[in-house]
Amino acid sequence: MNKRNIIMDCDPGHDDAIAMILAVANQNTLSIEAITTVGGNVDVEKNTLNALKVCDIIQLNDVPVAKGAERPLVKDIVVAESIHGESGLEGPNLPDVPTKQAESVHAVDLISDKLHKSNGPMTIVATGPLTNVAMVLIKEPELKHKIKEIVLMGGGTFGNWTPAAEFNFYVDAEAAHVVFNSGIPIRMFGLDVTHQVQATDQVISRISNIDNHVSEFIVELLRFFNKTYQDVFHFDGAPIHDACTIAYLIDPAMFKFKHVHVDIETKGEHTYGMTAVDRLGVTGKEPNVYFAYEADTTKFWDLLERSIAFYSDK
Amino acid sequence: MNKRNIIMDCDPGHDDAIAMILAVANQNTLSIEAITTVGGNVDVEKNTLNALKVCDIIQLNDVPVAKGAERPLVKDIVVAESIHGESGLEGPNLPDVPTKQAESVHAVDLISDKLHKSNGPMTIVATGPLTNVAMVLIKEPELKHKIKEIVLMGGGTFGNWTPAAEFNFYVDAEAAHVVFNSGIPIRMFGLDVTHQVQATDQVISRISNIDNHVSEFIVELLRFFNKTYQDVFHFDGAPIHDACTIAYLIDPAMFKFKHVHVDIETKGEHTYGMTAVDRLGVTGKEPNVYFAYEADTTKFWDLLERSIAFYSDK
Amino acid sequence: MNKRNIIMDCDPGHDDAIAMILAVANQNTLSIEAITTVGGNVDVEKNTLNALKVCDIIQLNDVPVAKGAERPLVKDIVVAESIHGESGLEGPNLPDVPTKQAESVHAVDLISDKLHKSNGPMTIVATGPLTNVAMVLIKEPELKHKIKEIVLMGGGTFGNWTPAAEFNFYVDAEAAHVVFNSGIPIRMFGLDVTHQVQATDQVISRISNIDNHVSEFIVELLRFFNKTYQDVFHFDGAPIHDACTIAYLIDPAMFKFKHVHVDIETKGEHTYGMTAVDRLGVTGKEPNVYFAYEADTTKFWDLLERSIAFYSDK
Amino acid sequence: MNKRNIIMDCDPGHDDAIAMILAVANQNTLSIEAITTVGGNVDVEKNTLNALKVCDIIQLNDVPVAKGAERPLVKDIVVAESIHGESGLEGPNLPDVPTKQAESVHAVDLISDKLHKSNGPMTIVATGPLTNVAMVLIKEPELKHKIKEIVLMGGGTFGNWTPAAEFNFYVDAEAAHVVFNSGIPIRMFGLDVTHQVQATDQVISRISNIDNHVSEFIVELLRFFNKTYQDVFHFDGAPIHDACTIAYLIDPAMFKFKHVHVDIETKGEHTYGMTAVDRLGVTGKEPNVYFAYEADTTKFWDLLERSIAFYSDK
Ligand SMILES: [Ca+2]
Ligand SMILES: [Ca+2]
Ligand SMILES: [Ca+2]
Ligand SMILES: [Ca+2]
Repeated sequence: MNKRNIIMDCDPGHDDAIAMILAVANQNTLSIEAITTVGGNVDVEKNTLNALKVCDIIQLNDVPVAKGAERPLVKDIVVAESIHGESGLEGPNLPDVPTKQAESVHAVDLISDKLHKSNGPMTIVATGPLTNVAMVLIKEPELKHKIKEIVLMGGGTFGNWTPAAEFNFYVDAEAAHVVFNSGIPIRMFGLDVTHQVQATDQVISRISNIDNHVSEFIVELLRFFNKTYQDVFHFDGAPIHDACTIAYLIDPAMFKFKHVHVDIETKGEHTYGMTAVDRLGVTGKEPNVYFAYEADTTKFWDLLERSIAFYSDK
Repeated sequence: MNKRNIIMDCDPGHDDAIAMILAVANQNTLSIEAITTVGGNVDVEKNTLNALKVCDIIQLNDVPVAKGAERPLVKDIVVAESIHGESGLEGPNLPDVPTKQAESVHAVDLISDKLHKSNGPMTIVATGPLTNVAMVLIKEPELKHKIKEIVLMGGGTFGNWTPAAEFNFYVDAEAAHVVFNSGIPIRMFGLDVTHQVQATDQVISRISNIDNHVSEFIVELLRFFNKTYQDVFHFDGAPIHDACTIAYLIDPAMFKFKHVHVDIETKGEHTYGMTAVDRLGVTGKEPNVYFAYEADTTKFWDLLERSIAFYSDK
Repeated sequence: MNKRNIIMDCDPGHDDAIAMILAVANQNTLSIEAITTVGGNVDVEKNTLNALKVCDIIQLNDVPVAKGAERPLVKDIVVAESIHGESGLEGPNLPDVPTKQAESVHAVDLISDKLHKSNGPMTIVATGPLTNVAMVLIKEPELKHKIKEIVLMGGGTFGNWTPAAEFNFYVDAEAAHVVFNSGIPIRMFGLDVTHQVQATDQVISRISNIDNHVSEFIVELLRFFNKTYQDVFHFDGAPIHDACTIAYLIDPAMFKFKHVHVDIETKGEHTYGMTAVDRLGVTGKEPNVYFAYEADTTKFWDLLERSIAFYSDK
Repeated sequence: MNKRNIIMDCDPGHDDAIAMILAVANQNTLSIEAITTVGGNVDVEKNTLNALKVCDIIQLNDVPVAKGAERPLVKDIVVAESIHGESGLEGPNLPDVPTKQAESVHAVDLISDKLHKSNGPMTIVATGPLTNVAMVLIKEPELKHKIKEIVLMGGGTFGNWTPAAEFNFYVDAEAAHVVFNSGIPIRMFGLDVTHQVQATDQVISRISNIDNHVSEFIVELLRFFNKTYQDVFHFDGAPIHDACTIAYLIDPAMFKFKHVHVDIETKGEHTYGMTAVDRLGVTGKEPNVYFAYEADTTKFWDLLERSIAFYSDK
């Protein structure tokens, strides 16, 4: 079986971290070619440190990490410290300075370079604002032919940062617009589906029982993340949004999709960053997105459990 | 028990017609003070004729009907002949010319006049675009103190005319903005709840069994309306959107509400007319709307059945 | 010679007052059918009192004055007390309560009524926000056939309230949009031309020399108005914006016009209320506006002088 | 005297070409470090070929030319073949293939690299859409400290592509927004000033009299350019827009400036790409732009003549 070559563009972030852990545990299926960071949950400096620290924990030593855009394409930066804490990865006790070092190259250049050098087309897994990905496509539109699919967390038929907009796309709606109009196949994991995978206390206790250093790390992450979701959104458990992207790549049958047209709102007064998802087919426009609307949560938690257990003898 | 004085501002329209039928059958609870029409499903001329024809069928002779705005406040008119047919009330075989006549007064003036002359505050039931209601409030803002509540069909967390906007508010988002920012209490029956009351074949057959002239009329309406909903939206049955407003006034316990803030989008490129419903409380703004999110459909169909049966000995 | 029947819709306002004085002095040419007021320079209550007080000064007893819209169609009200002072007519010492009384009818209804009853089409002279005029056209679009021309002060290729927007249209851009898209012939006196008629000290001294009760009133108005224009805009003299409309009706040759297409911006972030004047013909759209771009200021001041002198024996 | 190090980012384009000719003739004052191209007047492929061909004509062999962005940041590309002809440089008979070759590096990377390696801050002269410049600033915001000033052609208080927007900023308003909000000092040569330097027949005949290979080339450019300006805009002569930037760098006293705040409209329906120039100071915002409003045209044409004569013995 052919492994899928992926670039993970992210802003860790609790759920980005879990996505990384999931990916690394499944390298029989996925080949992680690069990890790139972007300003989002917290500023890009912190997100980069967080990515490196997660690499340290899961001993991902050989994959390059590059820091990317510190600001959105057009609008001023917005961060989500209210959700992820000051460091962006509050909960676990992490060293101030990671062992692993970031590359000196800019994320945009690392992504471009990887795409140029790749024989076949690669998959981009984007779990933060889409600034880096959009920059690659604006600078070199022809690189789209080297991208097999963009598997992303973002958007939804409702919002979490405003009533209409999900955080990643609210941060950089223009970048989302560029990506969604690129012609590249898109798998969109928005709030409709990511809110189905909430890490309830039962889930946390199941993870806790695995009892290795990674399960311990995740439990600490989830305890913090759950608390903010309970306080801010009155949810039973925090949705592990970003991990849906990797779960899909490992087991595509875990999700149900509808092929629909999605437009990104960049002009609205109350709707900036919204994904207008044409589920009823009223626009008459060609579908440009595989919109995930249902997760098999049993499979999801089983996969997460198996993947964390993978680290037991590391 | 005190009857509630209502003004029905509408654009009949299959579901507006059913709302009228429901109201007239429940005049022990509701006192219908006026029926006013607005351009929407079809043009205001046709909507007015339709309102008069429905009055003829249910022998509502003593309530004044007045024709209102033929165009939205700001934008050009849009109509929904694709949904309601050329006449706006396709299905039944209706006479070309109704017996009942419209008043010569404009709907805006009739509404203002009724409010001025009313002792207590009145309830406005709005089941078309909000142009007339907004005009009243723009012209005489102080009349808001004579309005107890605006019970309306419109909006939703998703759309049916565009991916983001429901038809009534897409037709005149500026009017919706005026109404939602007026400070008047608003009960909003949007697509989230109206899509729960779909007239399936089973419902139609139940109505058919009542076997009076009104049940026959409604069955013909629903056969046409269902077909368009099946063709355009792939629904099992057409939602009886507008009737939710009257059902609520008869039996408020039939619906569950959340008190939330709702903004109306008037600037967006893909989201014009959308209701940004702050279900998660992320805006920090004061609630201005009682947002209906759940209907007790058993109660709804029972009420409809009882109300149609009311006409058996008329 | 046929007199032109006019309705003056205004928000006095220093320059509105001078427009009234000019009109009344030229009743051999103009027949003033009504004066209606709108929220603008100050709130509609004050603007109405000011209109009545001006009527008292110039003994305009037989023309009905009606109070109109206190708020714009869609947006919240903005006033210009920074320019016209707290009362809207600061400068002269005026009695608190005018002798003349306003009609009890709403301005929108008075305008509609006058248009309905008029044999031939009338001219509307609008020197405030266009809310009343737009309301008439939204409520009864067919009345446009009773309007010969709308002669208005507003807009320009640059702004005075924002860099892009002139005050009247910034207050209610949606109303301007309705009027400019009505198909009614429009004479637009925007800032391009009104800034040419600045009442310098020389002008004021010329008016002062006329030495009657009206010249005295105008001199007091202009001393205040000039001071604000010097302080806020660093102008030598205040532009008598609104008077251009009446001057045109008396002597059309006083101004040069270009027949152009004008769109009203209602969505912009920095340009709300702007008139996009297609002077170069790049849109390819049909002209809808006679755009005044040059005033013969010698003629203008001569007319003003003659018109003020008219009051000497009153 | 210290030479000013400049990077010319352009889309030649008749007036871009003249700007290049002016710059090369004045290398005692200016040190041209790089020429970069962007999609604008025509597509970036053609603009790059044009830049290389102009280099051939003026024997600018040692300065690197790099091709840049082929599309704007967010919106779809628009080109101006109606103004500059199919090749973007219609008029003269030019070889299909230039002798000089473009670098293989992307313009964005060449600009970044030049800035990184420069000892002191550099000046960017931008005479096309601002896409490349914005990309540099989005990717590496800190590079702004290496930019002394951005001297650009674009914007104005009126438009030429729409009534509100000048072409360069209409093509990529988002890029203009990024640049104008960067904090970097900006000299803006918009239509207000560039329309003052129109190459009338008299100007062309003066250039023709110089009688060298460059004057011949420019005369052929201007004959074509004039014809389109006469046909499309009814101007006597084509404005040599872009050359104002270089003329300013050679002789800053040639222009009068006002230090003002300028916002870029990116949301408007009729005003996308407009520069809202706060000439009256009504926004209360800090000035961010030196807005050129007056050119000494005598000096301008003298400089142009002298500069073309420079090529006589080459
Ligand atoms: Ca993330
Ligand atoms: Ca309806
Ligand atoms: Ca006025
Ligand atoms: Ca150019």
